[in-house]
Amino acid sequence: MSGEQELGITESKEHSPGEWYAEVVQKAELASYAPMGGFIVTRPRGYALWERLQDHLDGWFKETGVQNAYFPLFIPESYLEKEKDVVEGFDPEVAWVTHGGHEELEERLAVRPTSESIITPFMAQWIRSHRDLPLRLNQWCSVVRWEATETKPFFRTKEFLWQEGHTAHATHEDAIAETLRRLDQYERAYEEVLAMPVLKGRKPPHDTFPGAHTTTTVEALMPDGKSVQGATSHHLGTSFAEAYDVTYADEDEEERLAHTASWGISWRALGALIMTHSDDQGLVLPPAMAPEQVVVVPIWQEDTHDEVLEYAEAVTETLDDAGIRVHLDDRDERNPGFKFNEWELFGVPVRLEIGPHEVEDETVTVVHRPDGESTVEDVDDLDETIEEHLTAVHETLYDAAAERLDENVRQALEVPEMLGTIGKHGGYVETAWCGDEACETVIKDEIAAEIVMVPMDDDVEPPAEECAVCGDEAVETAYFARTY
Amino acid sequence: MSGEQELGITESKEHSPGEWYAEVVQKAELASYAPMGGFIVTRPRGYALWERLQDHLDGWFKETGVQNAYFPLFIPESYLEKEKDVVEGFDPEVAWVTHGGHEELEERLAVRPTSESIITPFMAQWIRSHRDLPLRLNQWCSVVRWEATETKPFFRTKEFLWQEGHTAHATHEDAIAETLRRLDQYERAYEEVLAMPVLKGRKPPHDTFPGAHTTTTVEALMPDGKSVQGATSHHLGTSFAEAYDVTYADEDEEERLAHTASWGISWRALGALIMTHSDDQGLVLPPAMAPEQVVVVPIWQEDTHDEVLEYAEAVTETLDDAGIRVHLDDRDERNPGFKFNEWELFGVPVRLEIGPHEVEDETVTVVHRPDGESTVEDVDDLDETIEEHLTAVHETLYDAAAERLDENVRQALEVPEMLGTIGKHGGYVETAWCGDEACETVIKDEIAAEIVMVPMDDDVEPPAEECAVCGDEAVETAYFARTY
Repeated sequence: MSGEQELGITESKEHSPGEWYAEVVQKAELASYAPMGGFIVTRPRGYALWERLQDHLDGWFKETGVQNAYFPLFIPESYLEKEKDVVEGFDPEVAWVTHGGHEELEERLAVRPTSESIITPFMAQWIRSHRDLPLRLNQWCSVVRWEATETKPFFRTKEFLWQEGHTAHATHEDAIAETLRRLDQYERAYEEVLAMPVLKGRKPPHDTFPGAHTTTTVEALMPDGKSVQGATSHHLGTSFAEAYDVTYADEDEEERLAHTASWGISWRALGALIMTHSDDQGLVLPPAMAPEQVVVVPIWQEDTHDEVLEYAEAVTETLDDAGIRVHLDDRDERNPGFKFNEWELFGVPVRLEIGPHEVEDETVTVVHRPDGESTVEDVDDLDETIEEHLTAVHETLYDAAAERLDENVRQALEVPEMLGTIGKHGGYVETAWCGDEACETVIKDEIAAEIVMVPMDDDVEPPAEECAVCGDEAVETAYFARTY
Repeated sequence: MSGEQELGITESKEHSPGEWYAEVVQKAELASYAPMGGFIVTRPRGYALWERLQDHLDGWFKETGVQNAYFPLFIPESYLEKEKDVVEGFDPEVAWVTHGGHEELEERLAVRPTSESIITPFMAQWIRSHRDLPLRLNQWCSVVRWEATETKPFFRTKEFLWQEGHTAHATHEDAIAETLRRLDQYERAYEEVLAMPVLKGRKPPHDTFPGAHTTTTVEALMPDGKSVQGATSHHLGTSFAEAYDVTYADEDEEERLAHTASWGISWRALGALIMTHSDDQGLVLPPAMAPEQVVVVPIWQEDTHDEVLEYAEAVTETLDDAGIRVHLDDRDERNPGFKFNEWELFGVPVRLEIGPHEVEDETVTVVHRPDGESTVEDVDDLDETIEEHLTAVHETLYDAAAERLDENVRQALEVPEMLGTIGKHGGYVETAWCGDEACETVIKDEIAAEIVMVPMDDDVEPPAEECAVCGDEAVETAYFARTY
C-alpha cells in the first residue's frame, strides 16, 4: 500500500537507532501514529505479529490450567483505592471517565491500568473452598497508562495490548510456583517464538509491582545496549487477598487467606523483536512470527513467463500443503528486484527464486533474509528442505542475539569500573550488592543505569563479599543496565 | 465453583423468562454483574462461548480477504464530529475521558462506541490507487455505549465485546457485495454454529446506521416472541469517504471516492443462543459452541470403581484422540445424580454414562442434553458414533428453532389484525407497507412493535397492493415484531 518512492529504509540502525526504529515500524506497515499523542494504530502486519505471539502463549496457558475471561474496561475509583499500594502506584497514570452521554457520573471510572482491583473482588465471590483453588484467570485486552514520556510504537504508548493473568492459590508456595511457571513460559516465548535469549530474575524489592511480595522479570538486551523488561510475573502474597477479602475453607474447614499472583506480557515484546533482529534493509522476522514464512518470486522473460509461473505455482502449493505459510508474488507490474526489496522490508525469513534455470534443473534457489545466504535445492522433498531452512534462520537469529548477550554481561566490582563499563559498552554489569536502594541511586544518578534483575538461584553467591557501592556486606548479585 | 445448595434453576422459562434468563446466566457461570450498573464480568464459561464463535468467524473472514488490525480505544471529539450523522447518532451514548492522571485533557476523548471515525481517516492515508482496493480491516474489541436501559447480560450492557469490520471498495456494487458477503457469513454462523435459523433482510431507511446507505440485518426469534437483531452489515455508500476524504486513482489515473462498508456481530449473539435453546434445567449448547461436547460420567460401587474408571478413561481417550472435546468427571466426592444435574446446568450436549453393565457389554449409554434421548452404543468406532450424535443434537436444536420460527411468521394485512396477531402470539407479522415511517409509528405507539426487516429479494412482491396502515400504494413487504 505504499508508493514506490517511499520504499526502503533510509536511516541507519547503528548510527540513528531511534529514527531507524520509527522508520522500520512505519515502512514495514506495522503501525502508524494516532492523532492523539501517545497512541498508535496497529496495522495488519503489526497485528498479525501480536496474533502469532498470542496463539503460542494462549495455547501454553490453557495447557497449564488457565481459563480466559473478560472483566470490565472501567474500574470504579473506590475499587481502585482499596489496595493502597495500587492507588499510589497508578494514580498519576490513570485516564478517567467522568461523563456518560450528557450526564456527569456520580463516581469517576478509571480506564483499567491493570485489573487486580476489579478481578480480585470477583475471585473473592467465586472461591469458597480449597477445591476451588487454584483459580487461574487470564484476559487479553488493552490497558491505558497516561505516561507523559515520548511515544515509541510498541515500547511506550498510552494504550497497549497485553494479557494479564490473575491466579489464586491455597499456599505461599503454590503462588510462587505459579509465578515462576508463567515466567518460564515467557522465557520460552522469547526463545522459541521470538528467537531472543533473555535474562531471568527478580526485581529488587523497591522496584516490585505495587503491593507485590516479589516481581520476577525476563530482561532482553537491545542492540543499543539497553535492557528491556520483556514480561513480568508477580507473587502478590496475601496483600490483595486481604484488601479484597479472598478467603477459602481449607480441608479442616478453617478459613484461610488465599495467595495471589499476576503476570503479563505486552506488545512491548514486539518492539523488542523488531529492534533485535531487523537491519538497514527493514524488518527481520523469525519464522515462528512471520505472517509469510516463505515468499516465492518468479523470474521470467516474456518467452519463459508461463513455464516459470506454472513451476512456481506447483512449488507454492507443495509448501502450502505442508502447512508452511507461503506467498507467491506473481505480480506482473513489478520486477524481481523490486519484489526482493519489498519482501526484505517486510521481513519474510526465506525467499525462493525461480527462473528458467531452476525450472530446467528442477531446483529452487533459497535465500535467507537475515544474512542473504543462498543455496540451490532440489525440489524433491522440498517441504522438508524448507522446514530445515526455517529452523536454520531461527537459529541464525537466536545465536546472533545470544552471542551479543553473552558479550555484554560484564563483571565490575567497584563504582568507577561500573560507570566506565556501562558508559562505554552499555549492556549489563554484574556486581555485588548490599540490598540497599541508596546504592542503586548512586549509579542511577551518575549514568541512569539501574538494577534490572537479581538472579533467583539461591546458590549463586555474590561475586564479591562487599557491595560495590558502599562496601558493606554484599547479600546479592545485581545486574545493572540502562533501560527502555 | 458454586456451593451445592445453589445448584439448579428455580425460575420457569415459560412463566418468568426474564428471571429465568438471569438465573441461567449466573448459575451456568457465564457472567456476573459488575459493581457499575450496566456492566458485566464474563466468566470463563461465558468467555469460552465468545472464543468459539470468534474462531469460526475469524477463520471465515480471513479466508475472504479480511485482515485484523487494532485501532485506539479513544477517538478525539473532533474526529467523531466529522461525520454529522455519526455524531448525532451516538452523541447521547458516548462515555468521555476528560482527565489523564491529574491533568485535564485539552480535547475530550470518546471511548469508542464504534470505530468508523478513527478507522476511515487511516484508510484515506493508506489507499492511493485502485490496486489498494478492496481494503478489508477488522478488529475484535469492546465498545462502550452509555445506554440507560436495564442491563441484560449479553443482550444489553454498556460495554460489549464485538468485532467491527471496515472495508473500502472501488465501486458501489463492490461495497454492496461486501455488505451481503458478511451478512451471509453471519447467517452461516447462526445456522451452523449457534444452531439458529434467522431472517435476513434490510432495515427500513429510517432505521439504518447513522450515515449508511443501507443497513442489512439477520433477525432471530426469541422464545418470548420478540425479535433480536443478530448482526448487522452496513453499506455506507460514499458518506464516510467524503467526510474523511478516502479517494483512489482509478486505472485512468482519475481520482475517485471510495465506497465503504462496515459490519459487526456482538456478544448479543450469545444472549440469543442462551435464550433460544436453554430450558428449566439450565443451559443448552449446540456442539459447535460447547466448551465440553461430551461429558463421561462413571457410575460405580466400591467393588466396581476401578474397572469402571479404567473403561471410562479409555473411552475418554478415544474421543479426545478423535478431536472431540470430552471431559471425564471422575470426582469421588460427587454422586452420579449430582454430576448429571451439574453438566445439564452447564449445557454439555452429550453425556456418556458408564457403569458395570456398559463395561461388561462393551457399550456406553449416550444421553442427549436437549431432549434426554438415550441410546446404548457399541464402543467399536465410538468416535464416529459420537460425531453422529453431536450432529443429531445440532439438528434437534436447529429444527426446533426453525419450527418455532416457521410457526411465528404470520401474514396480517390490516391494522387490527396486525395488533391482534402480535399481541396474542408475538413473532413476526408480514405485511404490505408504503415505505413511510409514519405507518410504522402507528403500530409502534400501539404495541411497541416495529419493522425489524424488509426482505431484500426484489422479486418479492408485497403481499397486498395497499399499505396495511394508510392504504396508499404498498412498495415493500415489511416484517413487524417486538424487539429486544
